[in-house]
Amino acid sequence: MSSERLKEYLKYAQEKIDKHLDSLLGKNSPDVIYEAMRYSVFAGGKRLRPILCLLSYELLSAEEADEKVLDIACAIELIHTYSLIHDDLPAMDNDVLRRGKPTNHVVFGEAIAILAGDALLNKAAEVCLDWILRNKAKENFVKAAEYLFKASGTEGMIGGQVIDVVNSGKEITDENLLYEMHLKKTSKLIQASCVCGAYVAGAKEEVISDFEQYGKNLGLAFQIRDDILDLIGDSKKVGKSIGKDIKEKKNTFVTYYGIEKAQEYVESFSKKAIEIIEKYDRMSFLIELTNYLINREK
Amino acid sequence: MSSERLKEYLKYAQEKIDKHLDSLLGKNSPDVIYEAMRYSVFAGGKRLRPILCLLSYELLSAEEADEKVLDIACAIELIHTYSLIHDDLPAMDNDVLRRGKPTNHVVFGEAIAILAGDALLNKAAEVCLDWILRNKAKENFVKAAEYLFKASGTEGMIGGQVIDVVNSGKEITDENLLYEMHLKKTSKLIQASCVCGAYVAGAKEEVISDFEQYGKNLGLAFQIRDDILDLIGDSKKVGKSIGKDIKEKKNTFVTYYGIEKAQEYVESFSKKAIEIIEKYDRMSFLIELTNYLINREK
Repeated sequence: MSSERLKEYLKYAQEKIDKHLDSLLGKNSPDVIYEAMRYSVFAGGKRLRPILCLLSYELLSAEEADEKVLDIACAIELIHTYSLIHDDLPAMDNDVLRRGKPTNHVVFGEAIAILAGDALLNKAAEVCLDWILRNKAKENFVKAAEYLFKASGTEGMIGGQVIDVVNSGKEITDENLLYEMHLKKTSKLIQASCVCGAYVAGAKEEVISDFEQYGKNLGLAFQIRDDILDLIGDSKKVGKSIGKDIKEKKNTFVTYYGIEKAQEYVESFSKKAIEIIEKYDRMSFLIELTNYLINREK
Repeated sequence: MSSERLKEYLKYAQEKIDKHLDSLLGKNSPDVIYEAMRYSVFAGGKRLRPILCLLSYELLSAEEADEKVLDIACAIELIHTYSLIHDDLPAMDNDVLRRGKPTNHVVFGEAIAILAGDALLNKAAEVCLDWILRNKAKENFVKAAEYLFKASGTEGMIGGQVIDVVNSGKEITDENLLYEMHLKKTSKLIQASCVCGAYVAGAKEEVISDFEQYGKNLGLAFQIRDDILDLIGDSKKVGKSIGKDIKEKKNTFVTYYGIEKAQEYVESFSKKAIEIIEKYDRMSFLIELTNYLINREK
């Protein structure tokens, strides 16, 4: 049961992020690419990653999130969004629906969808570099941006997506490979969300490291929870084609361990995540958010 | 006629760049993505953009190119390469050959090709941020990287590609739109190559501005020359499907102005480019390179 305070915070944070995203994605010529970028960015995402970034920053710095952290928080969301556009493409997961809406390539055509994804990734880099420049290139800011792009690249998100692609239609029997795929494809960016907020707050390396572990365990719990929901949730709520994972022999913790064991993993990873940050002051809110994320329906 | 000295320089610069690219693209797990990235990066590109970056740096700083400029020079080539991989995709230009070799998606499949492109763009950001961090975030370094990603994004390369996509199969009758497409799609990244070298050399803003204009005019001359070669060159030399531009109603300076007027434009733009940099010391080599690029066969 999440508190009123948490719901208010989520609303506040989402509005702050949406407003900033809107300012970053101002329309220009040629129209269609900005429309395509905005379509996916404002397609109803819950802003989990930028919210984690903002919250990590606010709790560690004891300051309200402002321009200092909004740029990188939004850059993370731009990266997340580009990955969804490309993941949905015919040559990839071939999804026509996401969050109950037509996917980018269905609306704009495949060429523009490819370019919109490219543009969002590029824009994330533009935003970070501009942010670094405006903040007199403070070292922790550069470190935050560097961490983000390492997490989104071949050592992280893209690497995980490659493992998924290479093994789609096949059954992953190697447990380590299953973990590696999940860690890279999903956890890394969630880790980065927490780490970037911590870097901007000026946290020491030990704290950064703890937030990295928190994000890693949260990311695993979150993804497994997502896979369970995909199996049992109803199509309207979940927004994607029901039971698609099973039909398409996607490799998830559910297909590997079964639904009960997978749920145990959700609980143990989220417990681990909470244990790691409990030691810090002011973390009750983050702990509340963790539980909220793990117990949510889509 | 290009001198022996120029040929030697090009060889020296290409080797330096290739060696550095090789070190940036070391293999890792999962294998296939690194193979796909390396396949396109080492598919025989002439390294025009990083060479311009190196040369701009060397001539303006009177120093030999080293790690200080190699990272950003190579980042430019990673960006250029990713754009070629995505441009060749079935949903885009649908090319099966590039420089006489099978395109990335033909070899690795479309999914990996999409991801390889994403990975190269992401890697360019990783390289730049790492470079900034190692160089204590010097302001001119950050400005160089910022300029690069503005040039490669929706205000530059991607924007130009969008104009191309939106108008493919149609005839562009608006001269301004034709220029805009060329400036964004091709010139911007060439501009960035010159500007980045100048920034790293510590050049003043007026010099940066001149190198920007040099790059802009060179870029236009280069692209028009490219389009002429595509029309008259033979398939083996050119490496792409012959006369494809005409068949597919691509919008080029040749299809708009005719081949003679287009050749006049090659000459006037390259003349303009040279005029801009002539006033600086030590530019004879760059002028020689300009003429070489404009008069080359592929």
